[in-house]
Amino acid sequence: MQNGERLTKDEERLQKQLDFILELDRLKYIERQSYVADASRHENDAEHSWHLALMAMLLSEYANEEVNVLHVIKMVLIHDAVEIDAGDTYAYDAEGNETKRAREEKAADRIFNILPEDQAGEMRKIWEEFEAGITPEAKFAAALDHIQPIMLNDITGGRAWREHGVAMYQVIDRNSDTHLGSETLWRHTKSLVEKNRDLGNLKNE
Amino acid sequence: MQNGERLTKDEERLQKQLDFILELDRLKYIERQSYVADASRHENDAEHSWHLALMAMLLSEYANEEVNVLHVIKMVLIHDAVEIDAGDTYAYDAEGNETKRAREEKAADRIFNILPEDQAGEMRKIWEEFEAGITPEAKFAAALDHIQPIMLNDITGGRAWREHGVAMYQVIDRNSDTHLGSETLWRHTKSLVEKNRDLGNLKNE
Repeated sequence: MQNGERLTKDEERLQKQLDFILELDRLKYIERQSYVADASRHENDAEHSWHLALMAMLLSEYANEEVNVLHVIKMVLIHDAVEIDAGDTYAYDAEGNETKRAREEKAADRIFNILPEDQAGEMRKIWEEFEAGITPEAKFAAALDHIQPIMLNDITGGRAWREHGVAMYQVIDRNSDTHLGSETLWRHTKSLVEKNRDLGNLKNE
Repeated sequence: MQNGERLTKDEERLQKQLDFILELDRLKYIERQSYVADASRHENDAEHSWHLALMAMLLSEYANEEVNVLHVIKMVLIHDAVEIDAGDTYAYDAEGNETKRAREEKAADRIFNILPEDQAGEMRKIWEEFEAGITPEAKFAAALDHIQPIMLNDITGGRAWREHGVAMYQVIDRNSDTHLGSETLWRHTKSLVEKNRDLGNLKNE
């Protein structure tokens, strides 16, 4: 190998990036509670993340505040990376949600640090920003993350909701901040929730 | 409903966008020949598209020419949308590849037009740009699209290659333009291809 040391550093950087990219392949095996639109099986985290990126690209006009679409997309592409170690915690699993933060912090320490230092820092920061939910991009990304499973529940006759005996007030509670990302999208989504309550797909409590 | 006409137009626009987003859910059922990294099953188009978007975000420093990362990501998020109607054509299926273009044009006419006119036009244009492979973004996106299955083949012991009896020259031929997107990534990927030839995962022809 010519020009050994420099090449080695470059090669090492690329290897770390590719290792991370292959590590994140595991998101393809992490099942969510939501069903895909034809209800044939559960959706996984990789598919969910792709779906959110698609939504970010097409629905950004509905964000309450102007958002940097690339930043929103970066956020949704990696927002579930910690679930590789921490698993998916169902939105309506009260016990699981109590320990969620600690499990996910530990996962973030391991997973993002597979990357070269600069990118590890950037990805960790983006994930923390998503978790904090304060910036316009984080609020919009969170809204999409909450709306997408409602769309899938609606099109599958409330399949996941019915299986878990979810009540309308739980969906409304969980979505208490969704309007902060997009009033328009939340208005539409709320009408889907009410429709599903009327259809008996959500308990009327 | 107050202010009827305007609301109706807005609602119609949003409905078209959401219809498209749910239509594209079908990419979750379109199987590719590549296996996911643990070789437990084939990868699907939605997962593949997410993986490419992740790669675009993390590997853009290796593009030969400066690229607009958001544009690359938009491209990879929808590059396989036409396969909802046209199906996935395996890279090494000569017969399928002859009729591919016509099938995909027809699919693009239907699928992108689910969107409101402005976004239908934008998405169609992005897809055509990807297919033409001339802009820096299209060349880089195509490189990622070709490199990702090689990474998955490498990590699964050449699973898909062995099943189809693929020869090294076929992989090299198919990747004749990959270096146009990224010399660095192609150099690394070519070494993976050669390693797999040495291991007998690719026929030595």
